[in-house]
Amino acid sequence: MLESLKESVCQANLALVHHGLVILTWGNVSAIDRQSGLVVIKPSGVDYDNMTADDMVVVDLDGNVVEGNLRPSSDTPTHLAIYKAFEGVGAVVHTHSTYATAWAQACREIPNLGTTHADTFHCSIPCTAEMSREQIERAYEAETGSVIADAFAQANPMHTPAVLVAHHGPFAWGKDAMEAVHNAVVLEEVAKMASITVALNPSVEMNNDLVEKHYNRKHGKNAYYGQIKK
Amino acid sequence: MLESLKESVCQANLALVHHGLVILTWGNVSAIDRQSGLVVIKPSGVDYDNMTADDMVVVDLDGNVVEGNLRPSSDTPTHLAIYKAFEGVGAVVHTHSTYATAWAQACREIPNLGTTHADTFHCSIPCTAEMSREQIERAYEAETGSVIADAFAQANPMHTPAVLVAHHGPFAWGKDAMEAVHNAVVLEEVAKMASITVALNPSVEMNNDLVEKHYNRKHGKNAYYGQIKK
Amino acid sequence: MLESLKESVCQANLALVHHGLVILTWGNVSAIDRQSGLVVIKPSGVDYDNMTADDMVVVDLDGNVVEGNLRPSSDTPTHLAIYKAFEGVGAVVHTHSTYATAWAQACREIPNLGTTHADTFHCSIPCTAEMSREQIERAYEAETGSVIADAFAQANPMHTPAVLVAHHGPFAWGKDAMEAVHNAVVLEEVAKMASITVALNPSVEMNNDLVEKHYNRKHGKNAYYGQIKK
Amino acid sequence: MLESLKESVCQANLALVHHGLVILTWGNVSAIDRQSGLVVIKPSGVDYDNMTADDMVVVDLDGNVVEGNLRPSSDTPTHLAIYKAFEGVGAVVHTHSTYATAWAQACREIPNLGTTHADTFHCSIPCTAEMSREQIERAYEAETGSVIADAFAQANPMHTPAVLVAHHGPFAWGKDAMEAVHNAVVLEEVAKMASITVALNPSVEMNNDLVEKHYNRKHGKNAYYGQIKK
Repeated sequence: MLESLKESVCQANLALVHHGLVILTWGNVSAIDRQSGLVVIKPSGVDYDNMTADDMVVVDLDGNVVEGNLRPSSDTPTHLAIYKAFEGVGAVVHTHSTYATAWAQACREIPNLGTTHADTFHCSIPCTAEMSREQIERAYEAETGSVIADAFAQANPMHTPAVLVAHHGPFAWGKDAMEAVHNAVVLEEVAKMASITVALNPSVEMNNDLVEKHYNRKHGKNAYYGQIKK
Repeated sequence: MLESLKESVCQANLALVHHGLVILTWGNVSAIDRQSGLVVIKPSGVDYDNMTADDMVVVDLDGNVVEGNLRPSSDTPTHLAIYKAFEGVGAVVHTHSTYATAWAQACREIPNLGTTHADTFHCSIPCTAEMSREQIERAYEAETGSVIADAFAQANPMHTPAVLVAHHGPFAWGKDAMEAVHNAVVLEEVAKMASITVALNPSVEMNNDLVEKHYNRKHGKNAYYGQIKK
Repeated sequence: MLESLKESVCQANLALVHHGLVILTWGNVSAIDRQSGLVVIKPSGVDYDNMTADDMVVVDLDGNVVEGNLRPSSDTPTHLAIYKAFEGVGAVVHTHSTYATAWAQACREIPNLGTTHADTFHCSIPCTAEMSREQIERAYEAETGSVIADAFAQANPMHTPAVLVAHHGPFAWGKDAMEAVHNAVVLEEVAKMASITVALNPSVEMNNDLVEKHYNRKHGKNAYYGQIKK
Repeated sequence: MLESLKESVCQANLALVHHGLVILTWGNVSAIDRQSGLVVIKPSGVDYDNMTADDMVVVDLDGNVVEGNLRPSSDTPTHLAIYKAFEGVGAVVHTHSTYATAWAQACREIPNLGTTHADTFHCSIPCTAEMSREQIERAYEAETGSVIADAFAQANPMHTPAVLVAHHGPFAWGKDAMEAVHNAVVLEEVAKMASITVALNPSVEMNNDLVEKHYNRKHGKNAYYGQIKK
């Protein structure tokens, strides 16, 4: 079932290690087959060293395990909430990458300070509201998905495909697993650059015309970056 | 004598290098066999490159060498004091890992600022009191163990399995050598994240409900993280 | 056509990865054949893993593709503007290296704080003016070249062979591709050192006599550093 | 001539690269044969990749080349001045390692903030005075040696075997080439830790009793660290 999706989710999980975004067993990737509504996700707390595509777990959008011998990631309800809230999303990545997590712990959005950010993310990377005791106790991981959705009241989640969960860490997404990993890699680099930038100049802001130019030369309808016109 | 414990202590010492927690000959791991009360520990000032399980030294809880041709780590009395003070501890790791040592040098506890911290450590990582001249001159390494024990007057050392010794560096522990190394790895990452976080937002604090949730989903009686229910 | 120049440009692009200056497909190198006025440049948005000299694109100084199956880097007009403005330049490197980009995002020049800087760069690394909406909308990449040229009204671009484009990132250059890469490597290291230095002492300045001494012992007419007198 | 000294100087130069203290051709190591008064030193501006013991240059204490086909390091007069000023020194290392250089650029001594520092360096790492125009123009590299000697008016250079040259970078030394490299490695780590520490607590100071304890347990007459009593 969904063999090629399992393979790409497994490869994407290993790519997180390769890019230095996860240590130990932290981090997880999932991807959705929109036709069947089934989601392939990394199992919970398993070592990366021996992980294969067969270890991936298949769940439905209500979180029921449809296939797989292992328990799915404990963050599964958050992934599912993102698929339900943002219909363009094909894959979700969660990491505790160092700098993005530090911004999340500081409860600060990552401002759009340069073209490295604007090439991938149209706006600031939002930071969610802190959760109430009720939300934490009721259904913590699903409610994490709710505060993520709320953080995009103003922004388009497909144009700014990442978020910081307050006191927790980043989630990123994309149309497929490799794009979601790509966005998580850019997010960590942008978070590191921004932390150095604000130390050098706490009040700097970027002109919005430059944001529009860079975002649109890669993603707008007249995009001219790269080899393939879309 | 204690061959498998020696092997695991040797592997754990090498794992410190692999995880980037030690340079040169800094750092040491020990583990205890609670039945016999014997402790296996790394020899003092020996290169990691050629270290084997046979080089490990066996001492009793009074510090007498029971087996081994080399002198035990000069920090042995501190390890022994931890085993005597905290009865659940099966292994102890000492490093001079960069960020944890910087917090120790700053004489600041590492506050619990996010779920990365709360997943492994229930409370702030305490920093010991500075030692008096009398303590330093009397029995420095054993007194280091005393100030560590004092730092856990309020906290459970098995729920927050690490400490910063003021002006010195971190000790971490666990039920066995690999868990102690794991906790030392998490400690260094958490120390790095916290140093970036406090630069971005010096006054941030984490809601205690979130601490309880994350600590308990991994370690509480209804834990649901990972593959094996305990 | 220009086979050896293509080979050196390709090698220089790969050297950026080797030196840790680029991740993903960020960064590009070009070199010019001054006799023919033709420029060899990396294609746009192509993976480094399988890149060969044959993938390099040849363009003239007006940006017309003269040879090559791929589209040239979207930053090509900026490279061309640098060749037109600074006649001693034989090769140009553009990266988003972490620390240099952070200074660019902070809109701060990198001050000349030590001999590591002065050995390669005579003056502070200038930061360009921010571009107006008109410049951004008219011909963004070519106008980027204009603000770079303007930043050297006071300084000699062959003595200080690098610049920060405000809110964007660094460009460096040299007489050939390897020298341009060398200067980009030094720039990133100097940017990192300077960010640590200004945190330790925000008001420090270097004596100009020391700048002159270090720059001239490597680059002056009586230079005595290295093996080959020039 | 001095074949084994050349071999150890060559290995020590390569060890600087291995330990991440130098990039490009930065950094150099020398060692002295005190009987003959001859010094073996790295050649100037040569790549590390193909360097062999035969490339090392032999000079006398007046700087005359006694053997070797290449020009000695341009920093040779500084090395010689250190050998003349500090008679216990058997080898000298100069690097532009990132954090130590940042402290040198900030014109700040590195305070002794923890036992990692005190285990190797008895006192703060001094920073030299800035040189006058006369000193810079007269005999720059030899005068660099003079300001280094002046920085040890109060401290014993064999107990604190490193210095920061203001606006330039670190020199370290030891009784032989490998000990000098060891001290340069510790210096860089201590510099990094100190920069993080002072950001976390700008006013922290270490109790002098702890300094004495740690320095003496490794280097005092009753030292008990390591395997071999000296």
